[in-house]
Amino acid sequence: MQAIHGGDIYRNQVTLDVSSSINPLGMPESVRQALFSAVEDSLCYPDPLAKDLHRAVAGMLDVPPETLVFGNGASELFLAIANALRPRKVVLPVPSFLGYEYAFGAVGSELVFVKTRQENHFVPDERLFSVLTADVDLLVLANPNNPTGILLPKDFLYRLLCHCREKQIFVVLDECFMELCDGGYSLLKAHSAFPQLLLVRAFTKSFGIPGVRLGYLLCADPVLRERVWHQLPEWNLSCFSQAAGCACAKEGAFLEKSVRIIQQERQFLSAGLQALGCTVYPGQANFLLFESPVPLYEPLLERGILIRDCENFRGLSRGFYRTAVRKRKENQRLLQEIGAIIWKK
Amino acid sequence: MQAIHGGDIYRNQVTLDVSSSINPLGMPESVRQALFSAVEDSLCYPDPLAKDLHRAVAGMLDVPPETLVFGNGASELFLAIANALRPRKVVLPVPSFLGYEYAFGAVGSELVFVKTRQENHFVPDERLFSVLTADVDLLVLANPNNPTGILLPKDFLYRLLCHCREKQIFVVLDECFMELCDGGYSLLKAHSAFPQLLLVRAFTKSFGIPGVRLGYLLCADPVLRERVWHQLPEWNLSCFSQAAGCACAKEGAFLEKSVRIIQQERQFLSAGLQALGCTVYPGQANFLLFESPVPLYEPLLERGILIRDCENFRGLSRGFYRTAVRKRKENQRLLQEIGAIIWKK
Repeated sequence: MQAIHGGDIYRNQVTLDVSSSINPLGMPESVRQALFSAVEDSLCYPDPLAKDLHRAVAGMLDVPPETLVFGNGASELFLAIANALRPRKVVLPVPSFLGYEYAFGAVGSELVFVKTRQENHFVPDERLFSVLTADVDLLVLANPNNPTGILLPKDFLYRLLCHCREKQIFVVLDECFMELCDGGYSLLKAHSAFPQLLLVRAFTKSFGIPGVRLGYLLCADPVLRERVWHQLPEWNLSCFSQAAGCACAKEGAFLEKSVRIIQQERQFLSAGLQALGCTVYPGQANFLLFESPVPLYEPLLERGILIRDCENFRGLSRGFYRTAVRKRKENQRLLQEIGAIIWKK
Repeated sequence: MQAIHGGDIYRNQVTLDVSSSINPLGMPESVRQALFSAVEDSLCYPDPLAKDLHRAVAGMLDVPPETLVFGNGASELFLAIANALRPRKVVLPVPSFLGYEYAFGAVGSELVFVKTRQENHFVPDERLFSVLTADVDLLVLANPNNPTGILLPKDFLYRLLCHCREKQIFVVLDECFMELCDGGYSLLKAHSAFPQLLLVRAFTKSFGIPGVRLGYLLCADPVLRERVWHQLPEWNLSCFSQAAGCACAKEGAFLEKSVRIIQQERQFLSAGLQALGCTVYPGQANFLLFESPVPLYEPLLERGILIRDCENFRGLSRGFYRTAVRKRKENQRLLQEIGAIIWKK
């Protein structure tokens, strides 16, 4: 909960936040209207069973409603999974999202960090199999990874899941950025083949509503689902999150449009950063990891731009930055300011 | 999370809900406006440190901001306390709110239920001291109690806290209904004398916003606070809860007005129920526990009214009901319908 993440616009003077990776199109208009309508709903307790939300999201994903468990953001689900399983030994390839460490650290798990190779763009490789021995209880993977935005090779992920199934290792697979990737592929349809798989996704980034808090878990094993569900507080989903989720479930076209724009803007941003002398990693999501020849965090902040300094990611070091892909004008502004900083040196 | 509480308007046809005990005046207009404004804020992550909320609520309560820990409803705090302390043995006087059992059950605590006496209006008495031996880790108390609405005698509570301090027993004191009581007294000002005290309150009932989810914990011991805080997910407070809480903090006059109206209406409702042959317990909160000579739950539901059937409270039995104190017209309607049911028999 300490300031370990991006997005802290509350203790900085910011006119452009590229440190948190939210859909650049913001939220769909229908979601905004649903949130306005929910204001009056807040006079009543929210539905503790979130039946409408289950129905709507199950329809959107084409999965059985009972396989879903909703949380007050994906972060609540990570912590509930940690509390439900209380794994002794957890394997975390790094660099990756710091929230996993937060959640499993809270229950005292031993964390085994597997450093991935820079020359492999920080994508886990065959060495990971050798770490996943029978004494490991749980593996956490992000697909696409954060902060790289790079997808795991499909065949590699499939073999990894089979290996973990055999060794009875739980797998938390974080797909929170999958919907904004082009060329993305999801384990949604295949999840029922892996009963030890806990697939986590969120509405936060895809539909531009990080302030609302809504994530979900997909799991084929009813016993495992029940265990996680019992670690969630009663009435954990506000009337706002339930209303927003129901509206998001009808916005498939908004997502498709978002992916098209993000792809185009990511290419623009990537080319621009490379032209300025930065090394850009080939991510497919709505953000980019890059290395800069000069320090950027402070000089950008002086110009009102908050970028994610990635120095505190395990396995990264000074000079690594993550930027969200925004709309054209914002991307242009970011490139101009970075250019000014680099040329000044 | 199962249907163990009142307020389930989602699986019933209800035109009047008296099963959940919310301020009959609803929410202050300033809170409604804050919620509308928060719709645009939801495009950004909420402040993970909730600094404005800390300042505002600390000002309202006249306590140091750092003594507060906020939760996504009091229910999240109960579960976080359970996970932080993982008490082996928990003492729960009953009947009381079922959420305590849910939270401490989730971490596998041994629950010792201390049955209170009906002739003492279900208020714990001296026998409680003899149960609170050195092998007990935690005691949960509600003041006022739910479903009775009756306050603990001030001197008794003080002696109990001293006893627990001596025996090193943690005390969770739930004051979620205190602000709507007349003649209420809070441990707010005295909490610093009891470092093992975890005082929990909420905005839910007092300000009529159960759908928003916002509660807080007051604790004098920084180490204990830190332990609870580490069991909360990151970004647990939505932008709606933070905005609503800041607005509530300025609504002291709304609370005073609410207490006056609730007192008057509770007396009206109590007299009416007694005139119909019901036994009413002398609660001081915004709800009443009573015994009816005839079954009420189903017949009231047929008339569109949802009441809290208290049969599933430990220590209560068939014939016990809890009703919220509503506004005059709603109270009249409830009395008329109960009268019609009783007279029909």
